[in-house]
This record gives sequence, structure tokens and C-alpha cells, in this order.
Amino acid sequence: MDGLNYIAAAIAVFGAAIGAAYGNGKVISKTLESMTRQPEMAGQLRTTMFIGVALIEAVPILGVVIALLLVFK
Amino acid sequence: MDGLNYIAAAIAVFGAAIGAAYGNGKVISKTLESMTRQPEMAGQLRTTMFIGVALIEAVPILGVVIALLLVFK
Amino acid sequence: MDGLNYIAAAIAVFGAAIGAAYGNGKVISKTLESMTRQPEMAGQLRTTMFIGVALIEAVPILGVVIALLLVFK
Amino acid sequence: MDGLNYIAAAIAVFGAAIGAAYGNGKVISKTLESMTRQPEMAGQLRTTMFIGVALIEAVPILGVVIALLLVFK
Amino acid sequence: MDGLNYIAAAIAVFGAAIGAAYGNGKVISKTLESMTRQPEMAGQLRTTMFIGVALIEAVPILGVVIALLLVFK
Amino acid sequence: MDGLNYIAAAIAVFGAAIGAAYGNGKVISKTLESMTRQPEMAGQLRTTMFIGVALIEAVPILGVVIALLLVFK
Amino acid sequence: MDGLNYIAAAIAVFGAAIGAAYGNGKVISKTLESMTRQPEMAGQLRTTMFIGVALIEAVPILGVVIALLLVFK
Amino acid sequence: MDGLNYIAAAIAVFGAAIGAAYGNGKVISKTLESMTRQPEMAGQLRTTMFIGVALIEAVPILGVVIALLLVFK
Amino acid sequence: MDGLNYIAAAIAVFGAAIGAAYGNGKVISKTLESMTRQPEMAGQLRTTMFIGVALIEAVPILGVVIALLLVFK
Amino acid sequence: MDGLNYIAAAIAVFGAAIGAAYGNGKVISKTLESMTRQPEMAGQLRTTMFIGVALIEAVPILGVVIALLLVFK
Amino acid sequence: MDGLNYIAAAIAVFGAAIGAAYGNGKVISKTLESMTRQPEMAGQLRTTMFIGVALIEAVPILGVVIALLLVFK
Amino acid sequence: MDGLNYIAAAIAVFGAAIGAAYGNGKVISKTLESMTRQPEMAGQLRTTMFIGVALIEAVPILGVVIALLLVFK
Amino acid sequence: MDGLNYIAAAIAVFGAAIGAAYGNGKVISKTLESMTRQPEMAGQLRTTMFIGVALIEAVPILGVVIALLLVFK
Amino acid sequence: MDGLNYIAAAIAVFGAAIGAAYGNGKVISKTLESMTRQPEMAGQLRTTMFIGVALIEAVPILGVVIALLLVFK
Repeated sequence: MDGLNYIAAAIAVFGAAIGAAYGNGKVISKTLESMTRQPEMAGQLRTTMFIGVALIEAVPILGVVIALLLVFK
Repeated sequence: MDGLNYIAAAIAVFGAAIGAAYGNGKVISKTLESMTRQPEMAGQLRTTMFIGVALIEAVPILGVVIALLLVFK
Repeated sequence: MDGLNYIAAAIAVFGAAIGAAYGNGKVISKTLESMTRQPEMAGQLRTTMFIGVALIEAVPILGVVIALLLVFK
Repeated sequence: MDGLNYIAAAIAVFGAAIGAAYGNGKVISKTLESMTRQPEMAGQLRTTMFIGVALIEAVPILGVVIALLLVFK
Repeated sequence: MDGLNYIAAAIAVFGAAIGAAYGNGKVISKTLESMTRQPEMAGQLRTTMFIGVALIEAVPILGVVIALLLVFK
Repeated sequence: MDGLNYIAAAIAVFGAAIGAAYGNGKVISKTLESMTRQPEMAGQLRTTMFIGVALIEAVPILGVVIALLLVFK
Repeated sequence: MDGLNYIAAAIAVFGAAIGAAYGNGKVISKTLESMTRQPEMAGQLRTTMFIGVALIEAVPILGVVIALLLVFK
Repeated sequence: MDGLNYIAAAIAVFGAAIGAAYGNGKVISKTLESMTRQPEMAGQLRTTMFIGVALIEAVPILGVVIALLLVFK
Repeated sequence: MDGLNYIAAAIAVFGAAIGAAYGNGKVISKTLESMTRQPEMAGQLRTTMFIGVALIEAVPILGVVIALLLVFK
Repeated sequence: MDGLNYIAAAIAVFGAAIGAAYGNGKVISKTLESMTRQPEMAGQLRTTMFIGVALIEAVPILGVVIALLLVFK
Repeated sequence: MDGLNYIAAAIAVFGAAIGAAYGNGKVISKTLESMTRQPEMAGQLRTTMFIGVALIEAVPILGVVIALLLVFK
Repeated sequence: MDGLNYIAAAIAVFGAAIGAAYGNGKVISKTLESMTRQPEMAGQLRTTMFIGVALIEAVPILGVVIALLLVFK
Repeated sequence: MDGLNYIAAAIAVFGAAIGAAYGNGKVISKTLESMTRQPEMAGQLRTTMFIGVALIEAVPILGVVIALLLVFK
Repeated sequence: MDGLNYIAAAIAVFGAAIGAAYGNGKVISKTLESMTRQPEMAGQLRTTMFIGVALIEAVPILGVVIALLLVFK
């Protein structure tokens, strides 16, 4: 069949969006909670948050790249 | 088949909408909760919230872009 | 097949409705809870709620737009 | 096939009904809970509830509109 | 196919029944709980309950209407 | 196909039965719990329960009616 | 097809059995719990339980009736 | 097709078994818990348990009857 | 088709096994917990447990009987 | 079709394995927990555990027997 | 079809693996927790754990045997 | 069909991986928690952990073996 | 069929994205929580976090590699 | 069909990624939590964590190996 690569791209970007949103949502909301408990650590927590978000988004971004490869196939 | 790219666009935007809403809903409701506990940190929490929402919506917006690519294919 | 774009529009608007309702429901109910705990912050919380609802509905509204594009295709 | 737009309308209104009922149920039950804790804020909470319900039902009502478009197609 | 509009009507009324029952069940049971905690607010809570039930059933009733349209198509 | 309206009737009555049983079960068990906590409010709670059950069963009964329409089609 | 009405009867009675068992199980176990907390209210609770079980089983019994209609079709 | 009534019988008895086991399991375990808390009420609780089990098994037994009707069709 | 009654037997016995195991597991573990809290009631609890297990297994055993009927059809 | 009885055997043994493992796991872990709370009742609890495991495995073993009947059909 | 017995073997061993891992994981982790609370009962708990693991793995091992029968069919 | 044994191998190894990871994850994390509460029992707990992991992985390893048999069929 | 390797790539990258995001999200948010409780251990916790993220992403990265192999097949 | 081994490889690596990420995420986050409660046991906990991760990843790595076998078939 002809349109299967479009479906594949959609599945890949679907997983990437859900995964990234779930992981980031968890990390960022935990950062906000921790900043409220210990305001003097706000800077350090935000640094760790940026590293964490970068680590989490690594694989989903690869998923988006694969999705783009599949769309323009 | 001919309409598979439409279905693919729908799956992609479906995942983007669910993911973004889940992640944003979690972060923003946590921000509101934290602002109530420590009103004097409201500004700093709101800043972190904007950064967090931007980081969360990065991948879903890519999903919407892919969906638009698939619709106009 | 001929009716697949209708199904695609339905899937897109299905995700948009569920996502927006889940995210907004979470944020607004948290706002109500927070207003009850700290009545003097009611104004600030409501402002954050409006921003949050706008941020959450951004992607679902895009999903509705894509659904309309698919219906009139 | 000929009846796919009917199925699409059903899926769209299905999502709209579930989403609106879930979101509204959450917000209104939280309003009732908050009114019981702080009776003197009842008016302000009910106002926020009406705004919240309107914001939540925005996307599901769009889903119903799309369903009606699909039924009369 | 010929019977797809019947299936569509069933899906629409299925969502309407589940959604309305879930939302109403949540709101009414919360009303009962709140009335038990603060008996002197019973009237006000019941008024809010009626408004809430009306707001929740708005979209499911639209779903039933669409289902009836589909049955008699 | 010929038997699709039977399947549709079954889906509609399936949703009606599950929905009504879930909603009623929640409301009635909450009534019992509340009556135990505040026995002197038993009458008022039971009145609210009857109203609540009637409001909940409105949409499922419509689902049963649609199912009967579909069986005798 | 010829056997679809049998499948439809099974789906209807499936929903009726699950729904009735879930709702009744919830109400009866809550009655037992409440009777243990306030033994002097046992009679009143049991009366409410019978009314509640009757209200819950109303829609599932309709589902069984529809299933029997479908079996002897 | 020829074997669909066998599948229908299996689905009906499947729902009956799951439903009855879930409801009975909930009621009987709650009875055991309540008997342990208030040993002097053991007789009354067991009577209510028997009534409750009979009320719960009413619909699943109807499901078994329908399954037997379908097997010997 | 020819093998559908085998599949039906498997579905029936599948539901019977899951249902019976879930219900019995819940009742027996609650019995053990209650015996530990009130050792002097151990005999009475075990009697109730045997009655409860018999009541729970009634419908699943009927499911096994139907499965055997279907295997030797 | 020819291989459907193999699939049926697999479904039956699948349910038997999941059911037995779930029920036994629940009962045995509760036994261990109870033995730790009241070491002097260890013997009595273990006896009840053996009876309970036997009662739970009755239906799954019947499922395995039916699976073997289906394999050698 | 020719490969259905392979699929059947996979389903059987799938259920066996999930079931055994779930049941064993629950029992062994509860043993560890109990040993930590009452170190002087460690021996008796470990004996009960071995009996429990053997009882749990009885049915899954039968599932593996049936899977091997199906592979070499 | 020709490739069904590959799918069967994948299903078998899928179940083995999920099962083993779930069971081991539960046991090892409970070991870590228990070691932290009672550091002087660390050795004994780790011994029980190794036995437990071996008992849990028994069935999944059989699943991997069956998967390899199916791949090289 | 021709496009099945694209679908396979999408499934593989879907699992990789969800898995990595879930595991990383859990570990990083636990790190943030622990840093807040014991700020003087922040360095050691962050080191363990980096090791943990690397261990978790090992298998998902293999999944991405397999997905790329499948795309360029 | 020709592409079924690619799908099989994807299913195998999907299960491996989810399983490994779930198990590792649980163990590593529990290690971080335990290190925070008892900093003086950090070394011993990290050793146990490495052993645990190795034990958990054993089966998923076998799944990746089987997936690679299936890709290059």
C-alpha cells in the first residue's frame, strides 16, 4: 500500500508527543513543588530541570526526526 | 489507498492535543498550588511555568506541523 | 476510500475535546481549591488561570482547525 | 463507503460528551466542596465556576458543530 | 453499507449515557457529602447542583439528538 | 448488512446499563454513608437521592428507548 | 449475516450483568459498612438498600429484556 | 455464519462470571471485615450478605440462562 | 466456520478462571486479615469464608460446564 | 479453519495462568503479612492458606484440562 | 492456516511469564518487607515463600508445557 | 502464512521482557527499601533477593527459549 | 506488503520514546525531590542521576537504532 | 507476507524498551530515595543498584538480540 509511511510517521510523532509531555510535565511540576519548599535552592533546581528536560527530550526528538524522514519518503 | 494521510494527520494532532493538555494541565495546576502556599514566590513560579510550558509544547507543536504537512500532501 | 477524511476529522476533534476538557478541568478545579484556601489571592489566581487555559487550549484549537480543514476537503 | 460520515459524527459527539461531562463534573464538584468549606465565598466561587464551565465547553461545542456538519453532509 | 448510521447512533448515545451518568454521579454525590457536613447550606448546594446538572447534561442531550437524527435518517 | 441494527441496539443498551449502574451506585452508596454520619438528615438526603437518581437515569432511559427503536426497525 | 442478533443479545446481557453486579456490590457493601458503624440504624439502611438496588437494576433488567427479544428474533 | 451463537453464549457467560465474582467478592469480604469489627452483629450481617448475594446474582443467572438458550439453539 | 465453538469454550473458561480467582483471592485474603485481628473469631470467619467461596464459584462453575458442552459439541 | 483449537487452548491456559497467579499471589502475600503481625498464629494461617490456594486453583486447573483437551483434539 | 499453533504457543507462554512474574514479585517483595519488620522470623517466612512460589508457578509451568507441545506440533 | 512464527517469537519475548522487568523491579526496589530501614540485615536481604530474582526469571527465560525456537524454525 | 517496515520503525521508536520518557521522568523528578530534602547531597544525587539516565536510555537508544535500520531498509 | 519479521522485530524491541525503562526507573528512583534517607549507606545501595539493573536488563537485552536477528533475516 501507498500511504503506510504517513501512518508510521503519525504513530512515531504521537509517541514522541505523549512521551515528552508526560516526562516534562512530571519533572517541571516536581521542580515547582521543590522550589516552593526550599526557595533558596531555586537556581540549582532550575539548572537540574534544564538538564533533565534535555535528557528526556533526546529520544522523542529522534522520534520526530524519524517521522519527518517517513513523511518525505 | 487515498485517504490514509488524512488519518495520519488526525493521529498526529490527536497525540499532540492530548499530550500538550496533559503536560500543561499538570504544570499549571502545580503552579497555582505552589503560589497559594508561598504567595511571595508567585513571580518566580510564573516565570518557571512559562519556560516549562514552552518546553512541553515544543514536541506537540512539531506534531501539529507534521499533521499540516500531511493534510496538504 | 472516500469517507476517510471525515473519520480523520472526527479523531482530531475527539482528541481536542478530551484534551482540552481534561487540562482545563484540572486547572480550573485547582484554581477553585486555591481560592478557597487563600481568598486574598483570588485575583492573581484567576489571572494565572486565564493564561493557563489559553496556553492549554492552543494545541486543541489547532486540532479543531485541522478537523475543519479535513471536513471541507 | 457511504456511511462513514455518520460514524465520524458519532465519534466526534462521543468525545464531546465524555470530555464535557468529565471536565464539568470535576469543576462543579470542586465548587460544591469549596462552598462548603468557605460559605462566605459562595458567590465568587460560583462566578468562577460559570467562567470555567464556559471555557471547558468551548471545544466540545465545536465538536458538536462538526458532528452536525458531518450528519447533514 | 446500509446499517452504519444505526451503529453511529448507538456510539453517540453510548457516549452520552456514560458521560452524563459519570458527571452527574460525581456532582450529586459531592452535593450529598457537602450537605452532610454543612446542613444549613443544603438549599444553596441543591440550587448549585441543579445548575451543575443542567450544564453537564447540555452536551450529552445534544448527543442524544444527533443519535435520533441518525436513527431516522 | 442486515443485522447491524441489532448490534447497535446492544451497544446502546450496554452503555445505558453501565452508565446508570455506575452513577446510581455512586449516589446511593454516598447517601447511605451520609445517613450514617448524620441520621437526623436521613429524610432530606433520601429526597435528594431520588432527585439525583431521576436526573442520572434521564439519558440512559433515552438510550434504552433508542435501543428499542433499533430492535423493532 | 445471520448470527449477529445472537452476538447483540450477548453484548446486551454482558453489560447488564457487569453493570448490575458493580452497582449492587457497591451499594450492598456500603450498607454493611454503615450497619457496622451505626447498628441502631440497620433497619432504615436496609430499606434504603432495597430501594437503591431496585433503582439500579431497572436499566439492566431492560437490557436483559432486550437480549431476550434479540434471542427469539 | 454458523458458530456465532456459540461465541455469543461465551460472551454472555463471561460477563456473568466476572460480574458475579466481582460483586460477591466485594460484598462477602466487606461482611468478613464488618464481622471482625463488631462480632455481636455477625448474625445480622450474614443475613444481609445472603440477601445481597441473591440480589447481585439475579442478573448474572439470567445471563447464564441466555447462554444456555444460545448453546442449544 | 468450524472451530468457533473451541474459541467460545476458551472465552467462557477464561472468564470463569479470572472471575473465580479474583473473587476467591479477595475473600480469602480478607479472611486471613480478619483472623489476625481477632483470633478468637477464626472459626466463625472460616465458616463464612467457605459459604462465600461456594457462592462465588457458583457462576464460574456454570461457565466451565458451558465450556465443556461447547468442547464436545 | 484448522488451527483455531490451538488458539483456544492458548486463551484458556492464558486465563488460567493469570488468574491463578493473581489469586495465589494475593493470598500468600497476605499470609506472610499476617504471620509477621501475629507470629503465634502462623500454623493456623498456613492451614487456611493451603485451603485457600486449593479453592482458588480449582477453576484454573479445569481451564488447563480444557486446554489439554483442545490441544489433542 | 499453518502458523496458528506458533501464535498459540506465544500467547500461552506470554500469559505464563506475566502471571508468574506478577505473583512471584508480589510474594517475594512481601517476604522481604516482613523479614525487615520481624528479623527473628526470617527462616519461617522464607520457608513459606518457597511453598508459595511453588504453588504459584504450578499453573504457569503447565502453560509453558502446553506451549512446548504447540511448538513441536 | 509464512511469517507468523516471527510474530509469535516477538509476542513471547515481549511478555518475557515485561514480566521479568516488572517482577525484578518490584523485588529489587523492595530490597533497597528494606536495606535502608535495617542496614544490619543487608546481607540476608541480598541473598533472598538473588533467590527471588532467580525464581522470577525462571518462566521468562523459558519464554525466551521458546522465542529462539520459533525464530530458527 | 511494501510499507510494513515503516510501520515497524514507528512502533519501535514509539516504544523507545514512551519508555525513555517514563523512566527518565521518574528518576529525574525523584532526584529533584531528594535534592530538596537533603541539599548537601545534591552533587552525589546528580551523579547517580546521570548514571541512571544512561542505564535507562541504553535499551531505548537500541530501539531507535533498529528503527533507523528499518527506515533505510 | 513479506514484512512480518520487521513488525515482529518492532514488537520485541518495543517490549524490551518499555520493560527495561519501567524496571530501571523503579530501581534507580528507589535508590535515590534510600540514599537521601541514609546517606552513609550510599555506596552499598549503589552497588546493589548496579547488580539490580544488570539483572533487570538481562531479558530485555535478549529481546533486542532477537529483534536484530529478525531484522537481518
